[in-house]
Amino acid sequence: MNWEVLQKGFKKEQITALENRFLVGNGYLGVRGALEEYTAEELPAVNLAGIFDQVGDAWREPINAPNGIYTYICVDGKTLLAQDGEMKEHEMRLDFRHGICHRKTVWKTERGEVTVTSERFADHENVHRIAMRYTVRADFHAEVELFTGIDGHMWEINGPHFDSLAGRCENGRLVMEGVTHEKGATVCVEETVRADFPKESKTEEADRRLMHHFSLVTEKDRDYTIEKAIVVFTSQDDDFSKAQADELLDSFEREGYEAAKRVQEASWEEIWKYGAVEIDGDEDAMKALNYSLYHLQSIAPRHAKSMSIPARGLSGQTYKGAVFWDTEMFILDYFLFTRPAVAHTLLRYRVDTLSGAIKKAKDYGLDGAFYAWESQEGGYDACSDYNVTDVFTGRPMRTFFKDKQIHISAAIVYGIMRYTKITGDDSLLKEGGLKTVIECAKFYYSLLLKRVAGTEYELHDVIGPDEYHERVNNNGYTNRMAKMTLQSAADILNNLDSYGKDAAESISALYPVKELAGKFADAAENLYIPEPGDDNVIEQFDGYRKLEDCSIDTVRSRLLHEKEYWGGAYGVATHTQVIKQADVVAMLNLYSDEYPPEVLKANWDYYEPRTEHGSSLSASMYAMLACKCGMPQKAYPFFIKSAKADLVEGGKEWAGLIYIGGTHPAAAGGAYMIAVEGFGGVSFAENGIRVNPRLPGDWSGMRFYVCSGGERYYVNISGEDVKVEKID
Amino acid sequence: MNWEVLQKGFKKEQITALENRFLVGNGYLGVRGALEEYTAEELPAVNLAGIFDQVGDAWREPINAPNGIYTYICVDGKTLLAQDGEMKEHEMRLDFRHGICHRKTVWKTERGEVTVTSERFADHENVHRIAMRYTVRADFHAEVELFTGIDGHMWEINGPHFDSLAGRCENGRLVMEGVTHEKGATVCVEETVRADFPKESKTEEADRRLMHHFSLVTEKDRDYTIEKAIVVFTSQDDDFSKAQADELLDSFEREGYEAAKRVQEASWEEIWKYGAVEIDGDEDAMKALNYSLYHLQSIAPRHAKSMSIPARGLSGQTYKGAVFWDTEMFILDYFLFTRPAVAHTLLRYRVDTLSGAIKKAKDYGLDGAFYAWESQEGGYDACSDYNVTDVFTGRPMRTFFKDKQIHISAAIVYGIMRYTKITGDDSLLKEGGLKTVIECAKFYYSLLLKRVAGTEYELHDVIGPDEYHERVNNNGYTNRMAKMTLQSAADILNNLDSYGKDAAESISALYPVKELAGKFADAAENLYIPEPGDDNVIEQFDGYRKLEDCSIDTVRSRLLHEKEYWGGAYGVATHTQVIKQADVVAMLNLYSDEYPPEVLKANWDYYEPRTEHGSSLSASMYAMLACKCGMPQKAYPFFIKSAKADLVEGGKEWAGLIYIGGTHPAAAGGAYMIAVEGFGGVSFAENGIRVNPRLPGDWSGMRFYVCSGGERYYVNISGEDVKVEKID
Repeated sequence: MNWEVLQKGFKKEQITALENRFLVGNGYLGVRGALEEYTAEELPAVNLAGIFDQVGDAWREPINAPNGIYTYICVDGKTLLAQDGEMKEHEMRLDFRHGICHRKTVWKTERGEVTVTSERFADHENVHRIAMRYTVRADFHAEVELFTGIDGHMWEINGPHFDSLAGRCENGRLVMEGVTHEKGATVCVEETVRADFPKESKTEEADRRLMHHFSLVTEKDRDYTIEKAIVVFTSQDDDFSKAQADELLDSFEREGYEAAKRVQEASWEEIWKYGAVEIDGDEDAMKALNYSLYHLQSIAPRHAKSMSIPARGLSGQTYKGAVFWDTEMFILDYFLFTRPAVAHTLLRYRVDTLSGAIKKAKDYGLDGAFYAWESQEGGYDACSDYNVTDVFTGRPMRTFFKDKQIHISAAIVYGIMRYTKITGDDSLLKEGGLKTVIECAKFYYSLLLKRVAGTEYELHDVIGPDEYHERVNNNGYTNRMAKMTLQSAADILNNLDSYGKDAAESISALYPVKELAGKFADAAENLYIPEPGDDNVIEQFDGYRKLEDCSIDTVRSRLLHEKEYWGGAYGVATHTQVIKQADVVAMLNLYSDEYPPEVLKANWDYYEPRTEHGSSLSASMYAMLACKCGMPQKAYPFFIKSAKADLVEGGKEWAGLIYIGGTHPAAAGGAYMIAVEGFGGVSFAENGIRVNPRLPGDWSGMRFYVCSGGERYYVNISGEDVKVEKID
Repeated sequence: MNWEVLQKGFKKEQITALENRFLVGNGYLGVRGALEEYTAEELPAVNLAGIFDQVGDAWREPINAPNGIYTYICVDGKTLLAQDGEMKEHEMRLDFRHGICHRKTVWKTERGEVTVTSERFADHENVHRIAMRYTVRADFHAEVELFTGIDGHMWEINGPHFDSLAGRCENGRLVMEGVTHEKGATVCVEETVRADFPKESKTEEADRRLMHHFSLVTEKDRDYTIEKAIVVFTSQDDDFSKAQADELLDSFEREGYEAAKRVQEASWEEIWKYGAVEIDGDEDAMKALNYSLYHLQSIAPRHAKSMSIPARGLSGQTYKGAVFWDTEMFILDYFLFTRPAVAHTLLRYRVDTLSGAIKKAKDYGLDGAFYAWESQEGGYDACSDYNVTDVFTGRPMRTFFKDKQIHISAAIVYGIMRYTKITGDDSLLKEGGLKTVIECAKFYYSLLLKRVAGTEYELHDVIGPDEYHERVNNNGYTNRMAKMTLQSAADILNNLDSYGKDAAESISALYPVKELAGKFADAAENLYIPEPGDDNVIEQFDGYRKLEDCSIDTVRSRLLHEKEYWGGAYGVATHTQVIKQADVVAMLNLYSDEYPPEVLKANWDYYEPRTEHGSSLSASMYAMLACKCGMPQKAYPFFIKSAKADLVEGGKEWAGLIYIGGTHPAAAGGAYMIAVEGFGGVSFAENGIRVNPRLPGDWSGMRFYVCSGGERYYVNISGEDVKVEKID
């Protein structure tokens, strides 16, 4: 398989999609696959993880650093910009084996051809650093002005985030430092340039841009190359100083781009050693899957102990750089199976942001921990009360994602318990996880309602994964996840001693253990879970099946505006059975062992034609359940859709009038789950793993590594033959 | 005081408002104050009580009978129509002492002046009959063609309601008979014409019109008069036959208009004997109030044993001719105080439609009786799921009036218990009322929720009187009314023997009396009623006071379209504290004796500036509570607003794109309540009545009659002096 994504030609309307597709990242920063000459209009970004800012009443969002990639040339007085679209040839190429983005562009000028080639990567060994190489070649004696520097006109959705932005030149290096509006954090970008030609540059600063300016008269067919390192750091970084930044630039000056690239390649080879999945008989699928895994690895916070992955990765400011349930429910498994330390880091972030969740619950007059629907630092919920704009009136529409999507807290518990079960490592629980689980259970307990005339407990006025139906009662997914949370907390409280004396004592000091265990167990037992009906179908929420039962096409045909929101109070889907994404099917996938096969299948068959799959999260749940129903062929298109979410056009880039484009880590994670858990049929038993493959048509075999219980296993599926080997 | 409403001049844009203002009616039918020559375009109607029809998916609505009033003239070949607006003089006059509508119009033609005068009434002795007189006079020898007959082109909102409409001539009388679409009911209109000139008429039938055609050459300044009786009856009428219709026409032919008019006048004098309210020192108020009472008397179902009053009376098809909570909460008191038999008839309708309410509850998966929000015959709920049209998209908006305005059942119980208490007559309870109260209590019981972690009972997801805030929890008004219902049912069940052996036995056969009494008492005791806060303000529902607190003007300034709906999910008022109408204030007015005066006043002061008074129901609740707070001056403008609801321009004629014009019986009833209960200070004690007047500025005295405990009292307030006299 070639580990390469190649895009030939240029279309203006593809610019933003390609910036996502050719992204390079290292968990600390993401560099959109923008061409070097792009400015804010084309949405380039060096997007930073975990640092946020808010200006006025606009959404809080992550910071894009001043753009140190910024480089362009003038030839014979004419500035050559790809965005003008007048190239003779153009191609981009991503070596996703090693996280290196290449570009080649040929311009035809009056006097001859000018070729620019470049490559760059987000350094995986030194996550503050970006390295790039940029080469100009002309087939004539061209007068070339080469500009490279730092562009302080970043693309920002709700900026400007820097109240001040100061540039300076330090010993030939450019430095730009911004101070954020809300918290006064500093973001510093430093760069250095090496050149293979006599480097007589001027430094120019104007209009928030700080540039080197090289003037050349080129020899015919000779390469003129600069190598550049950009270091980004902020006042929020622990353990990283200006001195370290300087040293990263010093070493680059000493050793050059090629040396840094070799380290980068080795680093990625190490990642792929256990992180890749091999598929026999379907190279297209294998490539798409590993491309997805590339994206996950590019945004994994390996450098941190407590950090998570935003819903759009590090591809920009969309979705506010916030962490959604996507992480625990769709992204976690890949890391859990292949790199448990990263899974630990993701969940540690949730444990460490418990206080934010407790505060949110309190603000709603509730007990326990109500995790943020869109979590930023400290668990701050960045989700607005008004998430959608009414396309007809231009007014913000009151949505209830933040208020009513209570299943978020259960997702955290699900992640923690799954981590603990699969790794066998209870350190996460001991170090705050126990309290997290208990507080989430308290949250659901405080929400439980009982009809005075009834006996069961209910959860009312919620939004399930299917966001098109707001404020419903007894959403099956939500109730089942709440039950799991209550049961987990009861189990923990009943087995407190098994977590050691310290943990047991600290929990006992905080809670009336026995009383709480009793309450949670009672709640878990009596919480109503919708049962399959006569036709085996489970109703998504109370009254769902009384809604108009019409096709997705019918619903779509009622749209009056292509960007109008399908949900909310009056959306075209709202009063029909058409849903946005897997909901009952998600629940059945997670709890498939509790239902007979005919129930699983009946629900798949019922809900699939009624699902718009308006979220990239939907496909994986459908695919995994299809596999469990013995229908890998039906799963396959969903797998391809997930694996290619960032590889093909047509992703949903708009919700109402809000741009939501970016990469889709949850789809990538979903693709992995479909491959390994769905087709590969991996599940976890008491001791070790179980593998029950259900390969789709063309697949003759699969090979991958899976961790469990502190061990790593090599799984080799070949037709009917399954080999599982514990490795050192 | 002159009992006359006079309108001089003509403005096209006033046509529909004047048709409401000059309405005559007798409880069986209402005749809009349309000029005789009006056709469907001007919205004339002979609106019938209690007979409904539905065509296709459109709203079910009451029937307008073929228009037997229809009359016009041609003079010298030119048709003279007031709607053309070319009159020299025009006036309308309503003698509301006797329910007679007059008109006088003068046209200037090329050859001279032509004057038409007319009068008509809806016969109170013979409710199937309308009588009219129509006179033409010219000051020259005019060639007059006079057409009178039956216009089968009725104004219909959601028609045509007659699948067939057949006309015929019977011995010189015109007969038109329609068969309704939905149920095949027949509606028959017959008329007869007397004339004071040689009556050589042709009968012409064309295009759903059946007409007499008289041709005259007039003598100068001589009146040419026709007298006409129109009889309307339907196949749904009990005890009324074609023979009776013919007899009504025969007697009219024999005795003429004047004889019928004398009977009509005597009939109304009888009504006013105890039904009028006299006010000293404010003739304008007295006139407006008695004009309101005129409207109530014109639509009171005196002819029936079991019938109620629609929200827009008999003024047309708006509000679907349906009965709302208006009747029990705003209209009932006038009849209860002055003509208890009519109050009995109104409530009997509710008792008789209990099965419809039980069915509605069942359809929602609930127990007991959930009364129709918009009740038609049999308790059928005519309320649509989509009551408002989105002005921006033209789409129907899902509303929840029908589903969530659960306070309707309590209004029925409130009416029944109030009737029983004030009249001392428990026949209504014995004859179905007991069961009605118990079923309404069962309804609320089935809705009660308890937080598993809490102790109180709650009612969630409701709409209170303030319809701008949908789907709220623990609406104070609703919870208090539910508590009253539960308590009433518990009291009934605990004192079953007091209703006699038969009633006790029949209830015991239906219900587990003791168990139910215990449940209801427990529920009434534990149902959460929002308490006054530190500032004495009672929160309208959970979370209300966290909503944006802005002025009505601010909210209004956010409108993008003058007709857009303020409520619903995204209305301009929805996420603010601005409310449509009295809600907490309505509750406090009903239960003022349970709260200290400072609480009453604090809530009045808090809510009044936040109330749009977008419903004609709002003013009376505010006014009554103002009186109870000792602020009659603050009550006065609300009184005037209520009393003049049908007397001045500016009523709300549109909700979204739906025409909702018509008369306002609830405002009329409210005006009575303000006058007698608010200013007059009448309340009911164990034995007899209490009078504690709080007269506004100019009022020096009041006189009226009030019934209580089977007795009638004459109340004479003169300054500080109050005389209450029991009369025979």
